[in-house]
Amino acid sequence: MTRSSGIDVAVSTAILTLRRTDRGVVLSLPLVRRTREPFADRWALPGGWLTATEAPVGAAARTLAETTGLAPSYLEQLYAFGAVDRSPSRVVSIVYWALLRSDQVDAQSAEYRRTGLAPENVRWFDADDLPPLAFDHAQIIEYALWRLRNKVGYSRVAQGFLPEEFTLAELREAVETILGRRLDPANFRRQVESSGTLIATDEFRTGNHRPARLYRSSPDAELADRGPLSSEEMSIR
Amino acid sequence: MTRSSGIDVAVSTAILTLRRTDRGVVLSLPLVRRTREPFADRWALPGGWLTATEAPVGAAARTLAETTGLAPSYLEQLYAFGAVDRSPSRVVSIVYWALLRSDQVDAQSAEYRRTGLAPENVRWFDADDLPPLAFDHAQIIEYALWRLRNKVGYSRVAQGFLPEEFTLAELREAVETILGRRLDPANFRRQVESSGTLIATDEFRTGNHRPARLYRSSPDAELADRGPLSSEEMSIR
Repeated sequence: MTRSSGIDVAVSTAILTLRRTDRGVVLSLPLVRRTREPFADRWALPGGWLTATEAPVGAAARTLAETTGLAPSYLEQLYAFGAVDRSPSRVVSIVYWALLRSDQVDAQSAEYRRTGLAPENVRWFDADDLPPLAFDHAQIIEYALWRLRNKVGYSRVAQGFLPEEFTLAELREAVETILGRRLDPANFRRQVESSGTLIATDEFRTGNHRPARLYRSSPDAELADRGPLSSEEMSIR
Repeated sequence: MTRSSGIDVAVSTAILTLRRTDRGVVLSLPLVRRTREPFADRWALPGGWLTATEAPVGAAARTLAETTGLAPSYLEQLYAFGAVDRSPSRVVSIVYWALLRSDQVDAQSAEYRRTGLAPENVRWFDADDLPPLAFDHAQIIEYALWRLRNKVGYSRVAQGFLPEEFTLAELREAVETILGRRLDPANFRRQVESSGTLIATDEFRTGNHRPARLYRSSPDAELADRGPLSSEEMSIR
């Protein structure tokens, strides 16, 4: 039996966050402008080659940090894309994803403005307004958004976008953005309050509206589908 | 930037079915005895190398057919395993899985008995009584069973194990086997009847017990998580 020959293994990462715009809250992700052929000058997901001494998730974290400076606390494997014609040469790409809270992204942006050390060729794009992308990365992003919409119904996944403490309206807004449709506030409140994934705090957010209670995620809430995989397989270090 | 070097890409397949034994119904899967180093004589998941002209799912279907004669109608990607030390040489393995109905497995076994053309070095094992396995295949199977238990709660996945028509007791038995615990029959009936995933037929199974209505899966029931992936990426041909 011959071995797989002429097939390279790459990793890519789709980092999703919710960004507040004048059009409301939108899903947003960082892309990197390619400086090399193939697809020079096109935008692509952060990524690079898997090296012989790295686990795929480690390579994904490394290349994400090298290109964008981002260092999420976990990366979940999304899918291995391997269509024969997805790249001019034969490349199987193992794609990871993570949800970042908007305050994490904002803190990083502020740091970059302060130091002037922002990485070049990186920009955040709204998922509903993407530029032409390299390789099959448009399809990969479409798949990530589909998985996110499917997960939000049965998991605590939307909480991954929110700061430590949040109101039910903020959580509902995150879920609505992911699903692309409005939800009934009273039904939503009943559903999440009975889900056991939230802990009500004694604090309230005050402002223009009537005070809204702040919630936090239950420490039991598992935002990633880790399952029984070893730490070696799943964790970044 | 250098390319991934010295990394081979393999595919493996975990085919699960429910087998009726004198201990009740058990999850069962086919393994292939290795004839080569590394891990010669150890049992392993069916699989082989990805070749340059195949999509990974095509390679998984081909190697599954070559080693076991099985040809399920779809394979879903489970996970790409790539820990540095999972094999003596560096191998990333893209693992697919499928659920087979026991009548499909029985029909194939009968055909093999009739023709005497059963593939060598293949045997079905009960998931709770596995032999020592090659590579990280014990971990891969553990992960597949964990995903199956997680899916059964929110999807129609258990129906993938059953013949075209089945009783609610048979469906409940399948779910109970996956979850490893008993379910309340009345609650189970209420839950699946309200799920919209079943169609009640006008036929009944008669026998030692009182007649039990036969059901079939709704044609809308999607057993695989295909999402917006192109047919090229997901379908076997």
